[in-house]
Amino acid sequence: MNIALAQINTKAGDIAFNKDKIIGCISRAAGRHADLVVFPQLSISGGPLYDISGMPDFIDKCYAALEDICTAAADIDVLVGMPVVSGDDTFNAVVHVSRGAVKGYYSKAMPFDRSELPFFSGVDSPYFYDEDTPEQEGMPEYMIVCGNRKILISLGDDLQFIDTLPCFAASERDDRPDCIVHMAQKVFTHDIIEDDLEYLSGLAADLHVPLVSVNGVGGNTDVVFYGSSAVFNAKGQMIRKLKNFEEDFEEVDLSPDARNKILNLPAKSASAKVRHAYKAVALGMKDFFEKQGFVSACLGLSGGIDSAVVAAIAVDVLGADRVHAVMMPSRFSSDHSVSDAQRLAGNLGISCEKVEIEPIYSSFISALEPMFKGLPFSVAEENLQARIRGTLMMAVSNKFGHLLLNTTNKSEAAVGYGTLYGDCCGAISLLGDLYKTEVYELAEYINRNGEIIPENIIRKAPSAELREGQKDSDSLPEYDVLDKILYHLIEDNMSVMEVMAEGFDLGAVQHAARLLKAAEYKRQQFGPVVKVSRCTLGKDRIIPIVSNY
Amino acid sequence: MNIALAQINTKAGDIAFNKDKIIGCISRAAGRHADLVVFPQLSISGGPLYDISGMPDFIDKCYAALEDICTAAADIDVLVGMPVVSGDDTFNAVVHVSRGAVKGYYSKAMPFDRSELPFFSGVDSPYFYDEDTPEQEGMPEYMIVCGNRKILISLGDDLQFIDTLPCFAASERDDRPDCIVHMAQKVFTHDIIEDDLEYLSGLAADLHVPLVSVNGVGGNTDVVFYGSSAVFNAKGQMIRKLKNFEEDFEEVDLSPDARNKILNLPAKSASAKVRHAYKAVALGMKDFFEKQGFVSACLGLSGGIDSAVVAAIAVDVLGADRVHAVMMPSRFSSDHSVSDAQRLAGNLGISCEKVEIEPIYSSFISALEPMFKGLPFSVAEENLQARIRGTLMMAVSNKFGHLLLNTTNKSEAAVGYGTLYGDCCGAISLLGDLYKTEVYELAEYINRNGEIIPENIIRKAPSAELREGQKDSDSLPEYDVLDKILYHLIEDNMSVMEVMAEGFDLGAVQHAARLLKAAEYKRQQFGPVVKVSRCTLGKDRIIPIVSNY
Repeated sequence: MNIALAQINTKAGDIAFNKDKIIGCISRAAGRHADLVVFPQLSISGGPLYDISGMPDFIDKCYAALEDICTAAADIDVLVGMPVVSGDDTFNAVVHVSRGAVKGYYSKAMPFDRSELPFFSGVDSPYFYDEDTPEQEGMPEYMIVCGNRKILISLGDDLQFIDTLPCFAASERDDRPDCIVHMAQKVFTHDIIEDDLEYLSGLAADLHVPLVSVNGVGGNTDVVFYGSSAVFNAKGQMIRKLKNFEEDFEEVDLSPDARNKILNLPAKSASAKVRHAYKAVALGMKDFFEKQGFVSACLGLSGGIDSAVVAAIAVDVLGADRVHAVMMPSRFSSDHSVSDAQRLAGNLGISCEKVEIEPIYSSFISALEPMFKGLPFSVAEENLQARIRGTLMMAVSNKFGHLLLNTTNKSEAAVGYGTLYGDCCGAISLLGDLYKTEVYELAEYINRNGEIIPENIIRKAPSAELREGQKDSDSLPEYDVLDKILYHLIEDNMSVMEVMAEGFDLGAVQHAARLLKAAEYKRQQFGPVVKVSRCTLGKDRIIPIVSNY
Repeated sequence: MNIALAQINTKAGDIAFNKDKIIGCISRAAGRHADLVVFPQLSISGGPLYDISGMPDFIDKCYAALEDICTAAADIDVLVGMPVVSGDDTFNAVVHVSRGAVKGYYSKAMPFDRSELPFFSGVDSPYFYDEDTPEQEGMPEYMIVCGNRKILISLGDDLQFIDTLPCFAASERDDRPDCIVHMAQKVFTHDIIEDDLEYLSGLAADLHVPLVSVNGVGGNTDVVFYGSSAVFNAKGQMIRKLKNFEEDFEEVDLSPDARNKILNLPAKSASAKVRHAYKAVALGMKDFFEKQGFVSACLGLSGGIDSAVVAAIAVDVLGADRVHAVMMPSRFSSDHSVSDAQRLAGNLGISCEKVEIEPIYSSFISALEPMFKGLPFSVAEENLQARIRGTLMMAVSNKFGHLLLNTTNKSEAAVGYGTLYGDCCGAISLLGDLYKTEVYELAEYINRNGEIIPENIIRKAPSAELREGQKDSDSLPEYDVLDKILYHLIEDNMSVMEVMAEGFDLGAVQHAARLLKAAEYKRQQFGPVVKVSRCTLGKDRIIPIVSNY
């Protein structure tokens, strides 16, 4: 029993693109005489789909692609995922193709809905096609037979309910599967790779059944599927491990007499966490560009840590000649802002133009003077500078077709320490789900083989430089404190009193909670943020703008 | 049997605010010797709640408010809505308070989830607390007894399944209710008022049971609950009708011998459609400001129809002295742009400053010249003008605390005919769910008693005036054609070929469909849009930015 794992990078809604990849992998698997090739969840349609699944003809086109896949699979069995219609509803389903024909559809118990679609890969609802499932024509079962072996199919998070299936009720039952095949599109979040492999290993050991888990890979707007497909024997030992964050293809022989090398499960560590976060945002950016056909990026370099880290990632992803930086100092910029940014650009080998915003700022102030009538400098003038920079960067973006990279981090997005339509601009945010302290960790990771980000950028106190002598710590707690408070409020969903009980100053916690609430309107006008945490602002935590709680 | 209908305007998450309103209505109803007072769905918590329902202590605070409500209801029965916890789940529920104590909780069968919360009021999932519902402790029933009368409770869209209940299986059953009480928070969309009253009337007639339907009222960020609570007798005749778009309070005597005047059901009409759309966006704006404590607005007046309509609505809502207009002509602005805007401002009695953007534009062009190096005028320079205007308006907003009103209409949002971070700026969009042709209808409605919006603004050809002699129709079909195509693509979810079959030019339909797809990224960075159509872009229709379908 040879099973091939096809860890592919699909594109949401692009059936032709996905079908070609699938057929390529089928040929490859057939060429190696695999009995079965397994693809990730929803691989024909790609995902997350949101309202694409309801577009006219979309499901019909998936079925048409399935016909071509059948034709290509004359000598092999295939398990592939797509949305399937039954009655008035659409289901997230697995199609079993055997020797050139569809042998069966195996769907989730509950139809797609708008809540499931965006999140099907990470936080599925606890549905399972169990005995209570109303029968869907042609899809009441959850087991297939392939080469005389019984294979149990599990889709996404349904896996967590697999031990409740009747076939596992007693060890001597005739219907015990010879193997479990799990098909998923799991979204990257911190530590998920290690946690999930450990979980899969434990599940295989508990059930005494080999387990093949095939995950998708690739960035899809704001989520990254992380790959890391794996195979476990009936003792729960890992015998195959596919790459993280890259397409991959492997075969495994699950015959009782096969000799498979035992692999170590990866252990969680601080360094792995940073490395994976880096790879996730880099892949998120790469696919955001590639899948849309964009080839170049622009960004503003302030001389601060956030834009430095974004620039380094962008160069890694696109190459130095496709990243275009602009420095936009004002009267409030420190001397080192420009010199640090120039040194960074030199290290990265990227072009770096300088535009003084003072003349533009002055022209705005003159134009506004009849209305402002000598009123004192305020947040209006601070934000004006950020918006001039945003407008300059968008002009560069529009003129040359570079996509503008946003440089906001999660700490700033949380407390609203950024200017809407100013530094909040950008086609995609790479750091919007990473706290400031995590951005510093990324900088150290980027510098692991020598200086890319100048030490001075890492060491100096963070400042927006929108007024004289401004430091972030003037109006915010130091980031090592603020980030812990925010983590408790956001990721841990603690109340103010609960956070205080963790040893923080009540005033600081109340202040952070107030800012978090007040900045919701800014986050709701933010571009896509590559998800890396378990609670991404604007996606996993949405508060009505008009509310009081 | 006297029942009071309390059609109140709640605020999402503001339990203290909502509780005070509820207690006020209880006193009023008790003072009039009503037997029962009925509130809208989720009136203690307000809504839509999104992730507020999961905030620490939130549900506890709802229970605490309920205790105060019990205390206030010593002499009366109350039906009030709030989220209720049972086991690990939270349910959308009705609480029956009788003579100062909670008598029972009556919940929906399925727990809250993230999909239901935003939409609970308009497009509920088909749940009902029917016989198959797993029993929740203390909440398995759907009927209460009040003053010896059996009252069947129905929540939101559950009403559509009410005729499947066992009590209606045969007309002679003992458990037939004497009255149905329906509690809702229905979101306004075109024609819903007339359609829903007709539906309720038919339901009461079919079941031969009087029906009391209490709806919430008020704007909550991007949705408007429209009020229009009503009472029908067992023949389906309407005997009470509360106000549209305003808080209201009425009593009805449902005794068999009560003499209630029969009211006519309102008929759908083109004029009612425009009037209701106007009232919906006006209420949406009013509550967006009031519930957040903002008192003044600013907007750019281009001399075009969209900003004129928004200005007129804003003056209606806030008063002329609280609306601040700015004209920002450029070298491409026609002469009549300024004169038309001035005449409008004069008609409305609002302040109207003029800022020539030419000097600012020139300063940007000079600053960009080292990068642009004489490249021809392009979309970069067009968008630059719009972004200068957005930046000016945000400076005014920041300086004086006026909220910036967005002036984009649905036709523009659909095809991306607007500049991100430019004219797409704004705290709230009043017209973003109204097609251009509907904006003209609003203008005629605004002028129903004489000129407010100058005729020339209504008659001239629409233009963005971002380059010499530009007209919208240079790059788009005429709006009367475009809007019909867009309606078929969006509201009717038709394919390109299906739209063509309705009699439109294939090229024009393909062009519109392509633009609709390409502009998704802009819509995902848009502020809240007051919902008036059944398919609001960015809310009811979400396509992944990275996709191809």
